[in-house]
Amino acid sequence: MKGGLPPEDAIVQRLASAFATRRRDVKIGIGDDAAILAGPGRLAVTTDVLLEDHDFRRDADPRRLGRKALNVNLSDLAAMGATPLWAVLALGLPKKTRSEWLDALASGVRESAAEHGVAVVGGDLSASEKIFVAVTALGQAPEKPLLRSGAEPGDALYVSGTLGAAAAGLRLLEAGYRLSAEKDVLDPKGRRVPAPRAQEKARLIRHQIDPRPQLELGAALAAGALASAAIDVSDGLARDLYRICRASDVGATVEASLLPADSALSNLAGVLGLDPLATALYGGEDFGLLFTVPRRKVAALEALAGRFALRRIGMIDDGAGVRLVRDGRRVPLLDAGFDHFEP
Amino acid sequence: MKGGLPPEDAIVQRLASAFATRRRDVKIGIGDDAAILAGPGRLAVTTDVLLEDHDFRRDADPRRLGRKALNVNLSDLAAMGATPLWAVLALGLPKKTRSEWLDALASGVRESAAEHGVAVVGGDLSASEKIFVAVTALGQAPEKPLLRSGAEPGDALYVSGTLGAAAAGLRLLEAGYRLSAEKDVLDPKGRRVPAPRAQEKARLIRHQIDPRPQLELGAALAAGALASAAIDVSDGLARDLYRICRASDVGATVEASLLPADSALSNLAGVLGLDPLATALYGGEDFGLLFTVPRRKVAALEALAGRFALRRIGMIDDGAGVRLVRDGRRVPLLDAGFDHFEP
Repeated sequence: MKGGLPPEDAIVQRLASAFATRRRDVKIGIGDDAAILAGPGRLAVTTDVLLEDHDFRRDADPRRLGRKALNVNLSDLAAMGATPLWAVLALGLPKKTRSEWLDALASGVRESAAEHGVAVVGGDLSASEKIFVAVTALGQAPEKPLLRSGAEPGDALYVSGTLGAAAAGLRLLEAGYRLSAEKDVLDPKGRRVPAPRAQEKARLIRHQIDPRPQLELGAALAAGALASAAIDVSDGLARDLYRICRASDVGATVEASLLPADSALSNLAGVLGLDPLATALYGGEDFGLLFTVPRRKVAALEALAGRFALRRIGMIDDGAGVRLVRDGRRVPLLDAGFDHFEP
Repeated sequence: MKGGLPPEDAIVQRLASAFATRRRDVKIGIGDDAAILAGPGRLAVTTDVLLEDHDFRRDADPRRLGRKALNVNLSDLAAMGATPLWAVLALGLPKKTRSEWLDALASGVRESAAEHGVAVVGGDLSASEKIFVAVTALGQAPEKPLLRSGAEPGDALYVSGTLGAAAAGLRLLEAGYRLSAEKDVLDPKGRRVPAPRAQEKARLIRHQIDPRPQLELGAALAAGALASAAIDVSDGLARDLYRICRASDVGATVEASLLPADSALSNLAGVLGLDPLATALYGGEDFGLLFTVPRRKVAALEALAGRFALRRIGMIDDGAGVRLVRDGRRVPLLDAGFDHFEP
């Protein structure tokens, strides 16, 4: 192939071929949310990098950046139903980084590590023009890990949490809104946003900068063998659903009216220039779990609804790709969302 | 602390404190060459990043870059006496990276992975202005891993391979010398260097761009419990010996006349403006093993000399820091070498 890189998933596909292995100790290699390895026990391993100017700005709160760098990895473990155990941390830092900044980053990592039972057991440091935080997380995989493959026509499609809040939070940050150290919301001119509107904006910004990995939900799905396929929603519902469909060789139909679009999306649509439905479908970094449930397991799954915010949003079928039903009309959904290599 | 970062080892120390754990499943955490983890088996984990303009230039051969990115991690496993099993690979690539370039990088990783029994089982991709290759390698740790701590006064000090070749190779690259695809050496003006001098230059450049992890030696040292302490020479003999001395709370004396300085160093001293002894002491990236051997194990160690290039270069003692004996005079050795955060 000449010229630039193909889309991210195609690169992953290419690397998956390049590194294909028939070793029996590699249960799941490249191409799922985490690798599943036998040999010394049953271990889940995943790696994810946050990079300045792509995943955050230099003025980001280093403590929250540390939390997020670990949490996006734990979200991948959650999507496998794994229990996190350890992480290693490779940092790229400008030579003029202040010690306080690094301490705050480390305390954020440590905070999230403590919350989720993770020991940070190693790392690497590089001088770098742009900051990066590369984490590899390791966990104990369940006996039957949740994979992207395994969805069957007739399975119900569920998502946890709400959709679009993190993308709306990103839009607020891009517009110049900030969370102050005192948890006030500051507008682009640095003025405190008054109370009723501040709360909603603060919540959206927190969704973006401090996502929570759905580890308990993942573990419950795996323990009960309730999900036939699962992924964490990192690059947007549409794109991540396409990933399940491709891995499982199935199609899916999503009901627009069932999508748990965050309640703030319609309130802020005008202010932020957001289309609420498009944001719910294509906005990334919500880090809920998207998963499929065989018909005979739906009752058991619904019994979890008291512990987790779950929403049935559609159905797996044997059609082509993903379709959206809206106002009684069925339209193909774009395989779009966040792609690091989009021009 | 105000202002810039402290030296790299102090940052590591700081992070080791920040992430200190008493969990029984963490045998060795931050601060050694790799983490040793119990629980699901006995696993060794390490991570290391190669970053453009710090560890390589953009015009670097991508296949050799892929090999090196994995091999520097395997060198850390070697220094623990671990057997590599798996690796994950986080790549930062400019959006305009050519597919051929990525394919060559992947083939380099695959080549080295195949040589050393490693399965690449996951990864992450980021768009990035500067290229980076972040690898986390996992291995089976031996029953008694080789640590940096454990050296005792009276132990003999050994190093494997030669010293300074990689640093001299770097000097050649910086001066504009290149290895062509046909394995010719090209001078800074792109002219082929004639045969007798080309061979030596090619060897030095290869030492720099294609280092070999000493996995068999590490495994043999661990299996025979021959070494009381070990490290791989990544940042220079002096700096890495200081690391052993600090971790073991001992001193060391090195005999200048015993150092296995690469034979090319004196030949090229004039051309490259290198001091051979300083290059052997302070030049990084040789990736041999530096290790200490209790007196009662020296005979068993010497029995390995047929399989590995080993050189006894000095002695562990209870003095302060590291001293160099040269022409009968004893002088303190500087704790100097490669530091990512040097100004």
